[in-house]
Amino acid sequence: MVSAPSGAGKTSLCRELIDSFPDLRQSISFATRPIRKGERDGIDYHFIDTEVFQAMVEQKQLAEWAEVHGNLYGTSLETLTDAAEGGVDILLDIDCQGAAQIKENYQRGVFVFILPPDYSELEKRLYARGTDSDEVIQRRLENAQFEIPQASWYDYLVVNDDFQSAKERLCSIVSAERCRSHRTGQLLENFTVKGDK
Amino acid sequence: MVSAPSGAGKTSLCRELIDSFPDLRQSISFATRPIRKGERDGIDYHFIDTEVFQAMVEQKQLAEWAEVHGNLYGTSLETLTDAAEGGVDILLDIDCQGAAQIKENYQRGVFVFILPPDYSELEKRLYARGTDSDEVIQRRLENAQFEIPQASWYDYLVVNDDFQSAKERLCSIVSAERCRSHRTGQLLENFTVKGDK
Repeated sequence: MVSAPSGAGKTSLCRELIDSFPDLRQSISFATRPIRKGERDGIDYHFIDTEVFQAMVEQKQLAEWAEVHGNLYGTSLETLTDAAEGGVDILLDIDCQGAAQIKENYQRGVFVFILPPDYSELEKRLYARGTDSDEVIQRRLENAQFEIPQASWYDYLVVNDDFQSAKERLCSIVSAERCRSHRTGQLLENFTVKGDK
Repeated sequence: MVSAPSGAGKTSLCRELIDSFPDLRQSISFATRPIRKGERDGIDYHFIDTEVFQAMVEQKQLAEWAEVHGNLYGTSLETLTDAAEGGVDILLDIDCQGAAQIKENYQRGVFVFILPPDYSELEKRLYARGTDSDEVIQRRLENAQFEIPQASWYDYLVVNDDFQSAKERLCSIVSAERCRSHRTGQLLENFTVKGDK
């Protein structure tokens, strides 16, 4: 799970992560909004009816969900458990609320928060991007003030001060987590003491 | 803390780690054996009298210690706490018993166990090294059968199947651990909400 305030560089960093680890899979969310031209069901999203989505919520089949502009979006628990059981690592580019729900409902996963060096640098980057109006930028900065304190419960903090070094640190987290003994303990089965078999 | 059975490649991997992270410091142990020609007190070891060492043991000043061939060797708790407080990372190349004592007495630190791919590969490497007699190699292999199951309580397992990739994984552990939020939480102090000051 990777979260960040808007402008911290999360999207670019996640793209680099996928390039570095081609076996990392991106999660496919469920969505109730109409399918758009060029989108493919089951690839961009699993497009489902609102009633079906609501039934999934009631049956606690979603690890996280949210309403955005009147549409429902969510990640199923099955997506996460199937991947874990199949030994597949999934990358979720997700906001703080979604990440908090996953921590609560799934109780596993590795949570990484990308930080800008400070607020003034974040502001500078949002203006430099040139994609948002002043009003939108001000809203993003206000949101950042609520999002950044959430970082305290994440497992890892990566400051995107220098893009290349932030990329390397993010990649090191994936690489190191794959060596953690609760994930690699089965390696010790290669070492049954001679004569035990 | 890095442990491994003899022949797994720990010494070479730790050397690469120090090359990759020049700010990693190696711990200087206390020792009661006589200083040898070319050794420097306070650099190779802190050379102390047996009585002083025993007093340190009694006053629980050592994070780990052991007797080897009639001499006493140990790592002081102060070495570890001073480094932690000074923001310095220390590398300890240490056997399983020492690592277990540190886990017990210091209750912090990151524990990494280097594994060979399997026993037959370990045996092959010990013979290929050409430095030990058959008898010594057999003793090393017997020790490995006691040491390797200890790996289960370590934080990370790194299989030295391919040296370069094992090196990268070991380096990724240092890099990732430096991003862990319990070590980097003070970064969030850069983000006091405007108007709070």
